[in-house]
Amino acid sequence: MSTATAPEHADIVEAARALEARYGTPWSTPLPAWNETLDTLLAHRSVRNYADRPLPAGTLETLIAAAQSASTSSNLQTWSVVAVENPARKARLAELAGGQSHVREAPLFLVWLADLARLEAAGARSSASVEGLHYIETLFVGVIDAALAAQNAVVALESLGMSGVYIGGIRNQPEQVAAELGLPPRVLPVFGLCVGYPDETQPAQVKPRLPQAVVLHREQYDAPSQVAEIAQYDEVMGGFQTTQGLSAAGWTSRSLARWRSRESLHGRDRLRDALNALGFELR
Amino acid sequence: MSTATAPEHADIVEAARALEARYGTPWSTPLPAWNETLDTLLAHRSVRNYADRPLPAGTLETLIAAAQSASTSSNLQTWSVVAVENPARKARLAELAGGQSHVREAPLFLVWLADLARLEAAGARSSASVEGLHYIETLFVGVIDAALAAQNAVVALESLGMSGVYIGGIRNQPEQVAAELGLPPRVLPVFGLCVGYPDETQPAQVKPRLPQAVVLHREQYDAPSQVAEIAQYDEVMGGFQTTQGLSAAGWTSRSLARWRSRESLHGRDRLRDALNALGFELR
Repeated sequence: MSTATAPEHADIVEAARALEARYGTPWSTPLPAWNETLDTLLAHRSVRNYADRPLPAGTLETLIAAAQSASTSSNLQTWSVVAVENPARKARLAELAGGQSHVREAPLFLVWLADLARLEAAGARSSASVEGLHYIETLFVGVIDAALAAQNAVVALESLGMSGVYIGGIRNQPEQVAAELGLPPRVLPVFGLCVGYPDETQPAQVKPRLPQAVVLHREQYDAPSQVAEIAQYDEVMGGFQTTQGLSAAGWTSRSLARWRSRESLHGRDRLRDALNALGFELR
Repeated sequence: MSTATAPEHADIVEAARALEARYGTPWSTPLPAWNETLDTLLAHRSVRNYADRPLPAGTLETLIAAAQSASTSSNLQTWSVVAVENPARKARLAELAGGQSHVREAPLFLVWLADLARLEAAGARSSASVEGLHYIETLFVGVIDAALAAQNAVVALESLGMSGVYIGGIRNQPEQVAAELGLPPRVLPVFGLCVGYPDETQPAQVKPRLPQAVVLHREQYDAPSQVAEIAQYDEVMGGFQTTQGLSAAGWTSRSLARWRSRESLHGRDRLRDALNALGFELR
């Protein structure tokens, strides 16, 4: 593990470049330190085009070791992951996720699961009561555990020169995904993750994020000061969209389109019914 | 960003040591590569004892830049974070989280939020319908966004020689936490995160996790083969608990105790009511 040291000049140049790409605006806050891990984190981009290059043996095990190193609530480890490499299964999952061809094309597709079945089964073996598993809190723990684990895997794979993209579309039809993966009751597919080497002929760009002043609050939540900063970000995103060949709609209007109606959730408006069908009581 | 290269001998030694600490058993899978970022990820431990040492200027901004570099569903960025340094507020949050003194003692306490209010407010400014925000799916997006962001911050702070611990107890009394932080409706405190330099006189140990065969499934979920592996892990955890001065109860029985009854959720059995009170309809 590296320790905090004043950054070298080359690090400062690299850091400033990374931060300006991340926000699409100049960065002015002095930094305490910089390192290779921060480079990896800041350089993240979602990649949907992969090189025709297999993953080296041991890659999956390395990613899972990183994932398992993330925090987990009370060490309950209420998550699992299914690694899918079979082309036919990847193709079926690609369709279930809304026809996303990169799910089929990635050499490895990981489906991250909130897994309450493992401890439930252990309880059954020892005739223990598992009343707590029926509460929405316990499902939240599983979803959060899965997300922390998956993000560690993403950092690990990007540190190894690979890329990926999360697939929230795995929640479009959770019961069908559960059937495809042979999931027992009380296991929820939370999201997918495509993994592969990036196709360097179609490089993905770092997407600018909201200004820090919008997401970072000091001591208490500050709503009023977000308004002007969001307007500025709409300008930044408009410029970014233009470089991507998209109309310069900005952030606000494109984001609001996702929430406009029940239909704009693309079937995920029925997630509560799907959770019930998968055995979650949501008490 | 580093690229995949065959690991050097020193890296192999370091990797094997890290993996054996993580699992409490020998590691036999050949690795494709190793690097400083993997070192940081594998070395994670939850730290509750902090040195009396302030965080350097610019630390918070660096952590937030890392957090914002994580993936976010459709770039909606449905999360925020409140940075708490005020001693009196930290003390109140420590009590609300179940009397956890490390919340008070950490120089920085971050409360990570699923934030549906920001886009709701933008919708109100442009008279747009935001029907989609009322679905449980949308709350899940916010919780997952917050978790991915927070985990990137954890990796960043550990790469800088700092440590932390997640505080799920922030969900014990969500309405009171929301009042303390001045949160608008439709903003959920998901968890807290203590940040500080570790007290090297009270070092925390890496906690062994379940064998990979238990959490990693190939092509389809495999329940039967978990049984023997969990029994082996109970032995490993019993040994670890002994080194920590705890009774060697293993993993299964301690974990089942958390689910035994409604009461064992320590008040979080009422999370659904709290969500409703905070303005989440959970359609």
